Amino acid sequence: MPVNLTAPDPASLLPVSGVRLGIASAGIKKPGRRDITLIELAAGSQVAGVFTQNRFCAAPVTLCKQHLATGNIRALVINTGNANAGTGEEGLARARQTCDAVAQLMGCATDNVLPFSTGVILEPLPVDKILPALPAAQVDLAPNHWSDAAHAIMTTDIVAKGASRQISIGGKAVTVTGIAKGSGMIHPNMATMLGFVATDAAIAVSLMQQLVKEVADVSFNCVTVDGDTSTNDSFILITSGQAGNTEIASATGADYAALKTALSEVAIELAQAMARDGEGATKFMTIAVEGGRDRAECKQIAYAIARSPLVKTAFFASDPNLGRILAAIGYAGVTDLDVNALKVWLGDVLVAEHGGRATSYTEAQGAAVMREAEITVRVALNRGTVSATVWTCDFSYDYVKINAEYRT
Amino acid sequence: MPVNLTAPDPASLLPVSGVRLGIASAGIKKPGRRDITLIELAAGSQVAGVFTQNRFCAAPVTLCKQHLATGNIRALVINTGNANAGTGEEGLARARQTCDAVAQLMGCATDNVLPFSTGVILEPLPVDKILPALPAAQVDLAPNHWSDAAHAIMTTDIVAKGASRQISIGGKAVTVTGIAKGSGMIHPNMATMLGFVATDAAIAVSLMQQLVKEVADVSFNCVTVDGDTSTNDSFILITSGQAGNTEIASATGADYAALKTALSEVAIELAQAMARDGEGATKFMTIAVEGGRDRAECKQIAYAIARSPLVKTAFFASDPNLGRILAAIGYAGVTDLDVNALKVWLGDVLVAEHGGRATSYTEAQGAAVMREAEITVRVALNRGTVSATVWTCDFSYDYVKINAEYRT
Repeated sequence: MPVNLTAPDPASLLPVSGVRLGIASAGIKKPGRRDITLIELAAGSQVAGVFTQNRFCAAPVTLCKQHLATGNIRALVINTGNANAGTGEEGLARARQTCDAVAQLMGCATDNVLPFSTGVILEPLPVDKILPALPAAQVDLAPNHWSDAAHAIMTTDIVAKGASRQISIGGKAVTVTGIAKGSGMIHPNMATMLGFVATDAAIAVSLMQQLVKEVADVSFNCVTVDGDTSTNDSFILITSGQAGNTEIASATGADYAALKTALSEVAIELAQAMARDGEGATKFMTIAVEGGRDRAECKQIAYAIARSPLVKTAFFASDPNLGRILAAIGYAGVTDLDVNALKVWLGDVLVAEHGGRATSYTEAQGAAVMREAEITVRVALNRGTVSATVWTCDFSYDYVKINAEYRT
Repeated sequence: MPVNLTAPDPASLLPVSGVRLGIASAGIKKPGRRDITLIELAAGSQVAGVFTQNRFCAAPVTLCKQHLATGNIRALVINTGNANAGTGEEGLARARQTCDAVAQLMGCATDNVLPFSTGVILEPLPVDKILPALPAAQVDLAPNHWSDAAHAIMTTDIVAKGASRQISIGGKAVTVTGIAKGSGMIHPNMATMLGFVATDAAIAVSLMQQLVKEVADVSFNCVTVDGDTSTNDSFILITSGQAGNTEIASATGADYAALKTALSEVAIELAQAMARDGEGATKFMTIAVEGGRDRAECKQIAYAIARSPLVKTAFFASDPNLGRILAAIGYAGVTDLDVNALKVWLGDVLVAEHGGRATSYTEAQGAAVMREAEITVRVALNRGTVSATVWTCDFSYDYVKINAEYRT
């Protein structure tokens, strides 16, 4: 069961002017399932993205990168039920066919369309089902269909994921709204996750790539469910520029910072939602590593803890098995780590220092923390000033069940 | 249930002259459990070892390294039920106390004794239970107690692990016998594993460290259950020199090769036994990667497949979910990998080539392979001549159960 997570109230997902969303049913995996999402962008919108680093990147990811280079994106098309990954040249052709069909409907060029797919790998994309469903998606286009889209992009997700923020930039109201999907095969760079965050703020094209990377680094690239990096992960930032603010032209000013904060808040909420909805999750875990020499070593240690099946099964059992946390810190690969210098807390309870269990620690304290549904593991390395935080979930019978039965 | 694994017939574990083993019960975790093993080595024996690279290495590992430097080891003492890891200075003192007691019994110096512990981390080593049990272990010393020792060093292992070989070197019969324990928290360098392999062959001291490393590299360092590297892993090679062969003085001669082969066969059998007895295992998986530029990239890809929870749950479900295997290859971290050049086989069935599913492949073929209890995944990278093989097991409900309930 998802941990403290419910689908957003549709009314809470604010429209972003210049962006309309339409849903349709192609029945790719199940008849009647609303599995096609079309996103239409007004002229003048800017789009930037970060993508999976998996060498088996899916056909739509390859096309997205090519089409983004045109600098003119007018539509996004997303299907669930089939990832169009590991499908070779034929997969590229089918993704292009989908873009073609969308372009004809929308009156733009094929390379003005970004395709996204998520679902089973290695199966041919059923364009025979997708293409006939596109007109209905176009008819459905509306600015307030974010919640419908959040539902339509789900795969093994139990709960739809969306978030909004409103801020003021230069006296103008700016809206940020995002949706995401993902609950398994989740590990950065990036995850079986699709994330789409749109804002009506105006910002210089030249800042878009930096902005999307900075936002991803503190959000989607800080979440892991099982350490498996997917073939299709994509995080897309859309700016329609219709808020009426003076175009943000510098990455060092207050407006950039304000926009980045709002985007990051939405992206972090979505990323955490993926861990809360992690396959089989019963606990939401925050792993915070501080006092490191650089962010890389903090992330390395945080991920070693967050990925360890032994740590995750212990959390599932509400067992304060500190040894497994220490062992994970020890094998994280920070070769000159002085384990006698570090401290570890479970929640607010100091559990380890001087290379072993804290003398003040009692099992009852640890057990009390472990009974909570949300648990923070904090590690102070005491060798620097940098920190990093990673979110994950525990490892339950249901993770095995979900992944043993996924295709059947 | 362990996969095609039964405890060795006690008679099949051949005595190694110069080596005697004694078992006793200290009741560390459970009253009456035979949990103490003493190994006595004749004067003139040589010992070398490789140990965990976990920064939280356990107190006995620290002492082992110190004592091995003396070049004169006369006894090994092993306890299960407590790992004496994450126990700081006090843990070192207690491990030393155990060595002291063994030294007094055996009439040698403290630093002639190697200590080993396996079990729960972060709990103080109960020397009050261990020391009184040592005299009984000494009384029990006998050359044919290998099988008893294999049982006495088990933790979550279901099946005791031991193997023997006999070869001829320079016309003299040479015996190799080994035992090991380990079924969870197993990943190289190294695993919650203890491995002890002894031979009566005579070999120059100067070759011992090279030999133990070479043997570990093709055996214990090729197995993973859950990717968790333990604090206590140790693989120890003992040579008593009593076989009467001319001392092996060079690593390039036939005698060295023959001995290394026999040692490797025993160590591989033990390492595979750990994967066969992996916690909750229902399948034994061999991941063979060939055609790589170097062994490192082959191992990297093999381990990415072998560690993937998604791959392991699919194998548990007997589901030929090829996409998960390809995704794992893709995220293994070989950044210049050409996925269009590689081929993948499940058993003898070609399943993927040209960046996607092989056109000749049918789901029925894959399903037939997946029904087997022993499955080989073979990956040809087609970019070099090097290969590497890794053994692992699937990921079942019982893995979660075992690790959620371990301490209770």
